[in-house]
Amino acid sequence: MTTLLHIDASPRGDRSVSRKLSKAFVDQWLAHEPGATVIARDIGHNPPPFITEAWVAAAFTAIDERTPAQHDELRLSDTLIDELARADVIVIGAPMHNYGMPSALKSWFDKVIRIGKTFTFGLARGDYPLEPIMSGKTLVVLSSRGEFGFGPGGVREHMNHLETHIFTCAHYLGVRESHLIAIDYQEFNDERHRQSVDDAFAAIPVLVRQCLGIDGPARVAAE
Amino acid sequence: MTTLLHIDASPRGDRSVSRKLSKAFVDQWLAHEPGATVIARDIGHNPPPFITEAWVAAAFTAIDERTPAQHDELRLSDTLIDELARADVIVIGAPMHNYGMPSALKSWFDKVIRIGKTFTFGLARGDYPLEPIMSGKTLVVLSSRGEFGFGPGGVREHMNHLETHIFTCAHYLGVRESHLIAIDYQEFNDERHRQSVDDAFAAIPVLVRQCLGIDGPARVAAE
Repeated sequence: MTTLLHIDASPRGDRSVSRKLSKAFVDQWLAHEPGATVIARDIGHNPPPFITEAWVAAAFTAIDERTPAQHDELRLSDTLIDELARADVIVIGAPMHNYGMPSALKSWFDKVIRIGKTFTFGLARGDYPLEPIMSGKTLVVLSSRGEFGFGPGGVREHMNHLETHIFTCAHYLGVRESHLIAIDYQEFNDERHRQSVDDAFAAIPVLVRQCLGIDGPARVAAE
Repeated sequence: MTTLLHIDASPRGDRSVSRKLSKAFVDQWLAHEPGATVIARDIGHNPPPFITEAWVAAAFTAIDERTPAQHDELRLSDTLIDELARADVIVIGAPMHNYGMPSALKSWFDKVIRIGKTFTFGLARGDYPLEPIMSGKTLVVLSSRGEFGFGPGGVREHMNHLETHIFTCAHYLGVRESHLIAIDYQEFNDERHRQSVDDAFAAIPVLVRQCLGIDGPARVAAE
C-alpha cells in the first residue's frame, strides 16, 4: 500500500489553483487505491517557522549531546522528516511566487534537509560530500504560474526558480523520479489560461496511472 | 549623497561569513563617503512574516477601498518598500541554504514586490505585462556557499537558485546593475575556502571604488 505525503504551499484556500490540482491528484490516486495512506501537511496555512541560529546549532549538535531545549528546537523538524520517511510519493501543490517557491515551502525544505537525518556529509567523498539517506521516492509537483514560458526552451526558462529548485532539493529527500504538471497564464486570465487548466487536469489521471504502473512507463508532461 | 540599504539574511550572528562581507562592503563605502546614509534591515534575525491570504487580498485591493485591518496588514510591506525606494544601492549579505535563498530573504522579496508599489501590470503590454516602477538602482550580492562550482560553466551551475533568483527578482526592484562577490567551499573548510575568503575580501574595496566611479567601469567578479 502506498503512502502519499500531500503538501500544499499556497497561502490561499479555495481560490488556490495549485490546491485544486494536488487534491485532484490525491483523489484520483485514492480512486485507484482506496487503502492508500495520505499524510496531509498544509504548509501554506501553517508554515514551519524560519530557521534560527539556535536551530542550526541544535541540528549540528550530536544527538546524545543535545540539551532538552535543543531537542525541543528540532521537534517540528523531526515530525516533518518522519512524514517524509513514511512517504512513497510526495505530492507538492505550489504556486510560483516571484519566480520561485513560496517562502513557506522553502522553509519546509530548510527544516527537512538535515544532516544525519536526510543526508550524510563526508569529506572522504571528495568534491561531492553530500549523499541522501532516503531513496526510491516519487515526487509529483503540481504548480501554478502567473506568466508562461518557464519550461525548457521557453522565453522565461532562465527565470524559473520554482520547479527547478524543488527538483534540485528533491535529490536530498531520496527522490528517484520526478513529475511536473504546471498551469500557466494565470495572470492573463484568458483562453490560454483556460486551456492550460484543462490540459493540467486532463494530465492528472494519466500521471496517476503512470505512477501506479497501470499504463506502463510513458511520460506525461503538461509543461 | 548615496543611500545604502544594507540587508543581512543569515540567521547567524558573529559566525556568519556573509554578514562579515556585507559589513566590510558598507564600511569601505563609508570610508570613501562618510556622509552616506545606511538603512540597516536585519532579515536574518527579524524575518518578515510569511505571506497570508489576507495579505494577498489587501495588496490587490485598491488603496482607497482598503479596510483599516488591510492597511495594518500592509504596514510592514509599506515600510520595507519605503526603505527600498530611498536606496541607491542595495547590499544583500546572504548564505546559500539548500541551493537557494534563506526562506527569510524570500519572504522579504515577497513583501516588497507588490503591485502598484514596485511594479505595474498591464495586459496592453501583451505577453510581458509587468514593469518595474523604480529604476536606476545598484544591487550588490555578497554570498557564502557551502560547496563550489555555482558560477557560469561550473559543475553546480544548474543547481544555483540563490544569486540567479535574486537577480531575476531584482529587475522588479528597479535594479539597473548587479554585482556579485561569493565565497565558496565553506563546508570543506580547507585551503580552497581560505583562498576564497581572501579573494572575496580583496574584491570588496575594488567593487566599492567601481560603484563609486573612482576606478572606471572595470568589472569585478570573484565568482
